[in-house]
Amino acid sequence: MKNKILLGIADGVGDRPCQGLGYMTPLEYADTPHLDRLAAGGSAGLMDLHAPGTPVGTDLGHMILFGYSLKDYPGRGPIEAFGEGLELQPGDVALRCNLATVGEDMLVLDRRAGRIREGAEKLAEALHGMRVEDVQILFREATEHRAILVLRGEGLSAAISDTDPKDVGRRVKECLPLDSSPQALRTADILNRVIKRAHEILRNHPVNEAREREGRKPANCILTRGAGCMPELEKTAEKMGFRGACVAAESTVLGVARLAGFTPITSPSFTGNMDTDIREKARMAVEALKENDFVALHFKATDLMGHDDDPVGKAEAIRLFDQMMGMAVEGIEKEGIEGVIVALAADHSTPCERREHSGDPVPVVISGRNIRKDGVTAYNETACATGGIGRIRGRDMINTLLDYLEVTPKEGN
Amino acid sequence: MKNKILLGIADGVGDRPCQGLGYMTPLEYADTPHLDRLAAGGSAGLMDLHAPGTPVGTDLGHMILFGYSLKDYPGRGPIEAFGEGLELQPGDVALRCNLATVGEDMLVLDRRAGRIREGAEKLAEALHGMRVEDVQILFREATEHRAILVLRGEGLSAAISDTDPKDVGRRVKECLPLDSSPQALRTADILNRVIKRAHEILRNHPVNEAREREGRKPANCILTRGAGCMPELEKTAEKMGFRGACVAAESTVLGVARLAGFTPITSPSFTGNMDTDIREKARMAVEALKENDFVALHFKATDLMGHDDDPVGKAEAIRLFDQMMGMAVEGIEKEGIEGVIVALAADHSTPCERREHSGDPVPVVISGRNIRKDGVTAYNETACATGGIGRIRGRDMINTLLDYLEVTPKEGN
Repeated sequence: MKNKILLGIADGVGDRPCQGLGYMTPLEYADTPHLDRLAAGGSAGLMDLHAPGTPVGTDLGHMILFGYSLKDYPGRGPIEAFGEGLELQPGDVALRCNLATVGEDMLVLDRRAGRIREGAEKLAEALHGMRVEDVQILFREATEHRAILVLRGEGLSAAISDTDPKDVGRRVKECLPLDSSPQALRTADILNRVIKRAHEILRNHPVNEAREREGRKPANCILTRGAGCMPELEKTAEKMGFRGACVAAESTVLGVARLAGFTPITSPSFTGNMDTDIREKARMAVEALKENDFVALHFKATDLMGHDDDPVGKAEAIRLFDQMMGMAVEGIEKEGIEGVIVALAADHSTPCERREHSGDPVPVVISGRNIRKDGVTAYNETACATGGIGRIRGRDMINTLLDYLEVTPKEGN
Repeated sequence: MKNKILLGIADGVGDRPCQGLGYMTPLEYADTPHLDRLAAGGSAGLMDLHAPGTPVGTDLGHMILFGYSLKDYPGRGPIEAFGEGLELQPGDVALRCNLATVGEDMLVLDRRAGRIREGAEKLAEALHGMRVEDVQILFREATEHRAILVLRGEGLSAAISDTDPKDVGRRVKECLPLDSSPQALRTADILNRVIKRAHEILRNHPVNEAREREGRKPANCILTRGAGCMPELEKTAEKMGFRGACVAAESTVLGVARLAGFTPITSPSFTGNMDTDIREKARMAVEALKENDFVALHFKATDLMGHDDDPVGKAEAIRLFDQMMGMAVEGIEKEGIEGVIVALAADHSTPCERREHSGDPVPVVISGRNIRKDGVTAYNETACATGGIGRIRGRDMINTLLDYLEVTPKEGN
């Protein structure tokens, strides 16, 4: 394997002309010397993650960037489970949870149990390993009041309703089957029993007794949503035969990376916001390139600024991404790592004016001495549209990168 | 039918920036006045034979250029059979063979029977027409020690193992079924009996008795590999209703052409290398255009230079291809053949640095007075990327060419 790939991902970076930037896009507006140099040193294009005009979420967008397709998408629960380090097996049903406070009759008093932080780990431990019939329960705390619940057993279904009533002053909802299969009926019944048993365990747990003594809300119940069943998915890295790693702050991105067989690399100084440690991120990506063939280096703040309708902030986030990629390129040169192709991409557009993900394509670049030079000299939505990659689907873009690793089997002879 | 098509195919011509050419691609580096004139006289683009990032073999690449898709690919055996002039029928199982030398107990002494040339035809004749049960055996010699074996009968399967042990000093392997179907079991059994009978016929054949008297190794056995079953494939030319021909040296290309219902045209002066007779090739292509609607004119050496990692040699091969296409265009004008659209394409990229086929797209051109002019004035990977054809799949490119023959049925009304 002669080449290595460093893929810089600026989350949600694609945008539209913004009034506040004199009708330039944030990428056009921002000063991006390092990204532009990468564009000048290779081929550019526009990428539709799934298809033109189809917005995708961060999870699906990254699944595509890590070698999957829409049909492989297992729902939010399993992705979050991977993000929290739970290695799911095919057939597992995973749900996102809140630790919540309920009173009499399971009436919800606080959907976030006073945004509990300390002690959540101990509460999770108390639930982890429960069994209902032949179904095993995995439970893992996530950030603050969030957690992951996994049902592991034969013949389960993800076609079950949410139990989170979404509002205080309402009772925890009963879980209902969403189709008429015996699997859905059984899974809903088991989940209802899990929630009841969890309440019994949590209400008397020392962590909650202490909270109540201190006048804080006890985390005495779980609210579930987003059930998803883990499909049979080969890990991309194993299937294709290469070593991959992903440097990121966000658990969703790290979860997708783990799902795809990439080693997740993170650090407490990675915040997923403007104050993230870009120098350390770049350093760890360069370090990872020594042992891996394909390293993804993710940057989140661009997406947040889009959701906030903050074009100036987004341009500033882009400047940070530019600096981070510049540091990575410099590190690759300093360390003398040979044959590294540097690519730029995003998981979706998050236009400021939309404050949400959109189906606008994102600019992409593949850069390296052995990459065809197409004359594009800037990394933005309009310059890249004239590039040699043309307009490409996410899956085709990733296959193109993998072909530079020489791991793609030849069709025919 | 108003137009005719001349399709120039430079095998494996697509490449990447090469260090030895000052980081130009061989197409960018080579002087190609005739190809550039063709580019200037029409529309250009980039073509992915199957899909971006998917490398294809010469056989599949040409199947696509002759109107098929990946799903139609029958495996190497049937393609080679067509290449040697055997017209397969649906259900035929074709295998590639070596004529080999075995000693006691079918121990392989020479996998190529001293690279036998003379007499191979007579040995093939002796095997051709054999029957085992109701299965008819076709056997045809190919270049040197190579040959093609075809099993023709009801209920055969290509799911059988190779008998070639791939090394001397080992016994000829027994053919085994690769799945549990009765068809595979039966086909393996029949092939084992064919190999045994062939040994009996060959060991006492006068050609081999003469070889042994002269101290040369007898070709007393056949080793088989690459079984493939001929699918139901309509011949492109018949299905679409046009007359096609293909001028080429290489049996694989000629085989695919025959499969597609194109008349194969070749000559001993066509070598498939740098010393091939480009003048005669061009002349025969022009001649073929008088009687045919679609003529493919194939040039092989570009691919060989890529496999050899010889960028200068590849640029020289491109210069020869350029001259050949220039001669063809001149011939068309001299002969006054009207309405000829000249197209340029390739079956895949063979980047020098990779020494193998890659998934990089290939430049294409469609040129003629009635073709839209897109302003591209050079035939290479980067210039064509900006052309009016855009980035196109192989199948779509060929459909575009066939539509100029006005043979593509209108969908809808």
